[in-house]
Formats: sequence, C-alpha cells, structure tokens
Amino acid sequence: MFIDATPAQINEALERAYSAFLTYRHASGKAKAAFIRAIADEIEALGDDLIQTAMRETHLPAPRLTGERGRTCFQLRDMATTIEEGSWVDATIDTAIPDRQPLPKPDIRNMLIPIGPVVVFGASNFPFAYSTAGVDPAAAWAAGCPVVVKAHPAHPETSEMVASAIHKAVVKTAMPVGVFEHLHGASFEVGKALVMHPRTAAVGFTGSFAGGKALFDWANQRPVPIPVFSEMGSTNPVFLLPDAMDTEAEKYAKMYALSITGSMGQFCTKPGLLIGVEGAGLDHFMTALANEIRQIQAAPMLHAGIAKTFRTKRADVLTQEAVTVEAETQTAFGEDDGIPSLASVSSSQFLSNPALHQEVFGPFSLLVKCQNTDELRTVAAHLEGQLTCSVIGTEQDFREAQDLLSAVSLLCGRLLLNGVPTGVEVCASMQHGGPFPASTDGRFGSVGAHAIKRFVRPFAYQNFPQNLLPDELKDDNPLNIWRIVNGVRAK
Amino acid sequence: MFIDATPAQINEALERAYSAFLTYRHASGKAKAAFIRAIADEIEALGDDLIQTAMRETHLPAPRLTGERGRTCFQLRDMATTIEEGSWVDATIDTAIPDRQPLPKPDIRNMLIPIGPVVVFGASNFPFAYSTAGVDPAAAWAAGCPVVVKAHPAHPETSEMVASAIHKAVVKTAMPVGVFEHLHGASFEVGKALVMHPRTAAVGFTGSFAGGKALFDWANQRPVPIPVFSEMGSTNPVFLLPDAMDTEAEKYAKMYALSITGSMGQFCTKPGLLIGVEGAGLDHFMTALANEIRQIQAAPMLHAGIAKTFRTKRADVLTQEAVTVEAETQTAFGEDDGIPSLASVSSSQFLSNPALHQEVFGPFSLLVKCQNTDELRTVAAHLEGQLTCSVIGTEQDFREAQDLLSAVSLLCGRLLLNGVPTGVEVCASMQHGGPFPASTDGRFGSVGAHAIKRFVRPFAYQNFPQNLLPDELKDDNPLNIWRIVNGVRAK
Repeated sequence: MFIDATPAQINEALERAYSAFLTYRHASGKAKAAFIRAIADEIEALGDDLIQTAMRETHLPAPRLTGERGRTCFQLRDMATTIEEGSWVDATIDTAIPDRQPLPKPDIRNMLIPIGPVVVFGASNFPFAYSTAGVDPAAAWAAGCPVVVKAHPAHPETSEMVASAIHKAVVKTAMPVGVFEHLHGASFEVGKALVMHPRTAAVGFTGSFAGGKALFDWANQRPVPIPVFSEMGSTNPVFLLPDAMDTEAEKYAKMYALSITGSMGQFCTKPGLLIGVEGAGLDHFMTALANEIRQIQAAPMLHAGIAKTFRTKRADVLTQEAVTVEAETQTAFGEDDGIPSLASVSSSQFLSNPALHQEVFGPFSLLVKCQNTDELRTVAAHLEGQLTCSVIGTEQDFREAQDLLSAVSLLCGRLLLNGVPTGVEVCASMQHGGPFPASTDGRFGSVGAHAIKRFVRPFAYQNFPQNLLPDELKDDNPLNIWRIVNGVRAK
Repeated sequence: MFIDATPAQINEALERAYSAFLTYRHASGKAKAAFIRAIADEIEALGDDLIQTAMRETHLPAPRLTGERGRTCFQLRDMATTIEEGSWVDATIDTAIPDRQPLPKPDIRNMLIPIGPVVVFGASNFPFAYSTAGVDPAAAWAAGCPVVVKAHPAHPETSEMVASAIHKAVVKTAMPVGVFEHLHGASFEVGKALVMHPRTAAVGFTGSFAGGKALFDWANQRPVPIPVFSEMGSTNPVFLLPDAMDTEAEKYAKMYALSITGSMGQFCTKPGLLIGVEGAGLDHFMTALANEIRQIQAAPMLHAGIAKTFRTKRADVLTQEAVTVEAETQTAFGEDDGIPSLASVSSSQFLSNPALHQEVFGPFSLLVKCQNTDELRTVAAHLEGQLTCSVIGTEQDFREAQDLLSAVSLLCGRLLLNGVPTGVEVCASMQHGGPFPASTDGRFGSVGAHAIKRFVRPFAYQNFPQNLLPDELKDDNPLNIWRIVNGVRAK
C-alpha cells in the first residue's frame, strides 16, 4: 500500500530539507515555537480517527494510545516553551579589552546553532511519542533543523495522518517547504540512502540494536561522518537488596509484575533482569512475582514480527543451561500475543553465558540469584551499558550498598531507587539514553533540552558589530535570556 | 632514547587509569581544582630548563615558548576555577509531586558525570598548550577522568619534564595513582592499542587529518565505540570584501602577513586561503601583502619532518594548473626552514581543483580571485568544514554581505570580522573546533568549558534520599551552584 521512496525521491526530500534549512536556521525561538505548537494542535484535531488507526496498526489499546498522544503533544509544547524562553542556547559573552597587555582581547560571543537536516527513524512501540512528530523531530525543529522522517513500516497509516497534521502546521505558520519531509521505506536501501545523503547532518533512531548499529556504521563511513543517535536495547537491571526482600517482597513483586508486563513489555525501559541475593526474602519475592505474572492477561504484540522475535528470544534464554521457568501466564494466548513470563538462573551461570544478557523485547524477565551482596557488584561490573538501572532497598540496605550504587552508576543513564524504570517522566532532569549499547552516544538523551542539544553546535562570533549579531548575543539582551557575560551569569 | 610502550605497559597504564577513575570520579570540584592548580605550579617550578628543552626539541623561540607556558598554566588555572565554582555540571532538579493525577511525579535530578579514562595524543606545534598538560588533559581531569598521555615523538623530553611536574602534583594533592599515565610511542601500533583498549572511554587528538581520522575509524570499529575528538586540518578561509580592499588594503596586508607567517605558519588557525573580488583594491592588497611576505625572515620549522611535508604540500599547490607564485621570502633559508610565500589562482580554477583546498601547514597562503561578490558565496558553498572563517569588510560591505555571512557560518566553528584567526583567546565564549574535517565532532570545542563537556554525560538520579545524592543535587545546594529547579534557574 505504501511504496518505498525511490533514490530520486530521497534526494529531492533532502535537497528540499537543505533549502529549508538555509532559512529555518535563522527562525526566531518564537516562530519555531509557534510551528511546534501548531503541530500539537493539528494532531489533537485529528481526533479519534488517529487513535482508531493506530489501534488497528499497533494493537495497542485505546487508553494507552490516548495517553501517548497526550504525552506527544505535551512534549511538543514543552519543547516550544523551552525555545520560546530561549536560554537553552547557552549564550556566553566575553567583551573586548582593547588595551589589554601584551595583546588586546577581542569581543567573542558564543551560542548553540543548528547543524542541518536531521533524518528520523521512528519507533514501532511508540507510534506517536517516538515517531513522526515524536521527540526526535520535535528536538530537531526546536534546534532549527528540518526533519526527514521515514515512517515506521509497522504503522504507515498512523504516520501519514500525523504527517498531514505537520504539513498543515507548516502552512499555517508559514514555515519553509522542506522543514518536514515524510517518506516510506520498508527496505534496507531506503534507510541507507537517507543516512548516506550528503545533506543529512544527523540521524535519530529508536529500535533494535541491529538497526541502530547499522545506521551508526554507515554514518561513520561517509566522506563526512555525521552523528547518529540510536536508542537501542536495554535490559534495565534491577538490584534487589536483602533487607527490602525480607520486609517488602510482596509490594515490590506487585509493582514489578506490572512494570514487566505493561503494554506487553514493549517498553525500552522494561526491567528484563532482576538480580537478588538468595534467601527466604528473595524466595518470597519470586513466589509472589510468579503468582502475579500467572494472572497477567496475554495480549497481542505490536505486530506479528515482534511477536515472533519475542518467542524466539524468549526460547533462546529458556533453553540455556540451568535456566528455570518460574512462571508463565495462565491465560490463553494466540500466535501474535506476548506471553507474560518469568525465569531464573544462578549468577555464576549468568556471568559465564552472554546469551543471558540479551534483551528479550516483551513481557519477560530473568531473575539472577547471587550467593551474597558481593556477587551483586560482580554482576554489575559485567553488565553492558543500560538506559536505566534500579536498586530496591531499605535505608539499612543503602547504608551497606554505597559501592554497589557507585558500580551501577557506571552502567546506565538513569539510576532509580525503590521504583520501576518504566514510565519515563518528560522533564528537564530526565536522562533517556545510556552507555553503549543502550545508545550509540550516551552523552545525549532523548527527552527535553538534552534532546535539542544533539542537533546543535557551539558557534563563536568574534568582533561583530551589534547589528550583525543574533538577538541572543546583543548587548541589551532583547530576548531577556540567561547568559554568561564576562564570567557572570545574568539575565 | 625513548622506547615505545609495550602492549603490556599500555594495558597496565589503562588498568591503573581505570582503577583511579573509580575513586577520582567522586572527587569534589575543590579537590580536582587543587590538583590542577598544583600542576600549573609544578610546571612553573621547572623554570628555564623546560623552556630550553622545548627550544631544542621544537625550534620555537624562547619568547613564543614562554608565552605558551603562560597560556598553559592560565588554561589549567582557568579550568580549576570553573570546576571549583561548580555550575558547569548543569544541575537540573524536578521535585516529586506525589499526588499528581493520573500518576505521581517522581523526584528526578540530573548532572553531568565523567565518562572514564581519556587517552590524549599531544600536538607537535604546541608542546605545552596542546600536549602533556594541555587543554585535553586539563579538561579530562576537570571532568573527573584520568588521563593517559602519549608523548609526542617530536618533543619527548619536554613531555617527560611536564609529566614529572604532573606526577609531583599527583603526590602533593594525594590523587590516586593512575590519574595520570605517560607513555611514549612513535609507532602506529601504540596509538592503535591505546584507542582499542576496553578501558579507554574517549580520545583527544590534535594533529593531521590522516592521524586524527585513523583514530576516529578505530574507535568506531571497537565492540564498544567511543568518542574521538580529533582537531585536524583547516585552511581558515578569509573573505576580502571590495570596499575594505579599496580603502584599507595596506592595513590588512600587514596584519595578514604576520598571521600567515607567525611561528612559521605552524598554527591550526593560520589563514591558508584568501578570497577576494578582482579589482584595483585587491591588486593593491596583494601587492602590499607580497611585499610584506618577502621581508619575512625564514626560520626552522618544528622538526625536519614538518619542514619536508611543508615543502611537498607547497609544491603540490604551486604546480597545479594556473597557480601563480606572488611572493617568496627574500631572506636565506635552510633545508629545515619554512619558506614564507604567497600564491594566487582564479576562483574557477579553485572550484574545479580539490588539490587547491588542502591545508599547507606552514607559512603559505593562496589568494583566490573571484569575478564578483556572487562568486565569493559560490566558493563558500564549496569549501569543507573549517575551524575559523574571517570576513574583512567595511560597514558598507557588510550591509551587502548578509548572505555571504550566513553561508560562511555554515562552514566553521568561529567566524570573525576584521581581524586574524591566529591567536585563539582562552575564554568561555571561544569555540575551537569546527565541522568535519576541521574536527571529528564540531559539536564540541577544545577551549574552556566546551572542552570539559566532551568527557561527561548527563546522569539522572531518580527517587534518591538526600544523603545518597551528590552535593550538587542536594536540596540545600551546599555548593551554592547555579541550578534549574522545577524550571527556575537559581542559586
């Protein structure tokens, strides 16, 4: 139904995006904010049709999709607020000292400027919030970069509808043609052509390790390499400390059953590893969690391919040596459904078998049983980069776990205590991204202002007269933004 | 005299650096600042011996080296001041809203944390300021990262002396062993082993395109790719606008003669391309510049290899079709000396011949003659990424050159008007770095706080009790740093 873009169409899209860049890069924060807000308005104006289309394409239930649409519009408006306020450009001014000895000091002023057209590959599991008008496009527009979106082949109609909303916003706010381009492509070739095009300045991707790493490798092989922000897999390890297991096992079992199986485990922050110290407390937790998992209703996954991959990867883990199935949903399930399930393994097996470290995308978690708390640290030292890590403990546990917290913080972008990693709050302090292989560049995140900073670079203006400076850097600070002027932070 | 590090020595150095990282990453800003200041003190304590050694190894004159030592100590102390003040960590706090509907809002706090051991390859042309205790090591230590320096093989004794100063500072301020490691290596293998070592978290390099790009490629081929900050070549184009040439040709000719030939043109910001519009004004400028260049005294280059490469690359340009030699120093010169010289070519030849776009590292510049101001923009649109671009013009010129300024800003990290690009001011607003191939990552710079940010990543603490938070993120702001708390910037 949707045909892959041809090489000529890809080229035209990127050339239009580059033309748009030459004007859009100079758009004011207010103008960009109006455009981004108009996108949110137009998405809302699509009404229930959008939800119905997404339900059909993704099998996600209406409340989840309605919530995600709300989050998407919130993200857009939040980004608009950030750029309208304007301080995010990190304006820094050092004024001239003409009579400095031995040499005069020049006037230098610095701010973040956009890098160029950004290609975005949307996520299958967030048809709104990480797709066509998701965080990556919003951040790129906020930065001053046009966006070329490749619709996710699992929800092309949803993507078309959102694209129509964006196109309306482009017209309404008189943005240059090319500030948004929308293409389809199920093939490998379309993705590669988008990354390799000389006008592409950066890439945003959310999805599998294989996909994200391929884009990263292509981008680095270009004559002019470009940054790729791939958010890939994560097992989001959870460390269960002994005193908490002894005193609050049931509370955390209930909490984690929902976190493991919510939206059929199709979150990048789903806790896929639970690591605890053997004993009565952990047994109690495991029994309670197993009981919860058995009650969870199976439901269709996003699409048949994801369901198939889930089953293959789950079977890969369950057939490894010394892995025990602890629970499986007792509800009926069809071929395209996720199967809520829990398995366990000893830490020695886990440490010696990399196959057990892989993400199983879906409602599955593996409990790793350690002999003592030292082994928790050993496991932490052998894990790969993660989006999140969680530690469950009491005050007493934490008093004795400083070394563990320190070791775990090396692994991840977000460390949370006594909670679940699913449910990524959209706020300035969030870090959504982590050390490789969770992301290709853990020095950036994909929420809020951290996301904008992926698509900009610092730029210094030396010895410019006032009339040639951007407003952000003029002496009288017409935008009333926070700046650092001769070392002093001021408005 | 200095023997290449063995694979075992490289491994030991990185393992010590990683061990040091596990404690040094938690060092306070004050402790790190004391260490970095002690390095500056110890470098000064080396006295004239250091200058004499560097003179012998680099052929740079004493005043230049004394100045560079001053700059190096200033950089170190400036970095110390930045981290002691502490606001650079971008602390961002969003406090919990437990009764928010439909879901409680968690407490999330974010700051920049160090990424791990940094390997630094020093520059031949700045034996102090971009070498063993130069910007890259200073920025890494400021960030909280240990540093493994590979001494530049062209000034190993100077590097040893500076290393001894750093080792003294390590002991004096009780820093962990491994926070600084110093290795020698003239071979390809040593560099590769340093980049490929699993404990290496990032690489800083200043030097040739071939060298910097090789490190970048290796780093991206690792199982866990790491960022490489290579500052490579730049021709630092200078656009000469007509009215300025008509009215102030001699002033700019004198200014540029010094900028092209200072330190025998061995600056990464040396202006290697001058682009003007044919006419009496440009002729006047060229004649005046040629006269100045002829008077410039030839002097030895940094080492024989650089002198040889200069001659080869200069000859490459001079033997291209339709290139005219406009001036050459009239002073005597020996085999290892630079040859101050100026050549010219038409813009049509320049545009069609990529060989003319290459950097010639040394006292050489090529004047590109355009038919009209439109051609200036055409040349700008066809240039590669640059550290700096300069535009020389009068008020009248700039009124008519908005499009040119816009086009030129796409090319470079720093754009300066009516000055010379040499002489990189060390201040917060400086951007030293530019789009590829000037740097491997133009989103970062190698001066001031921009340099620290290469070696950190944002990290989110969710639901942490006060006693487990770093001081930067505690409610009562014990470090008195600027933070964004619930959207409000405050101290």
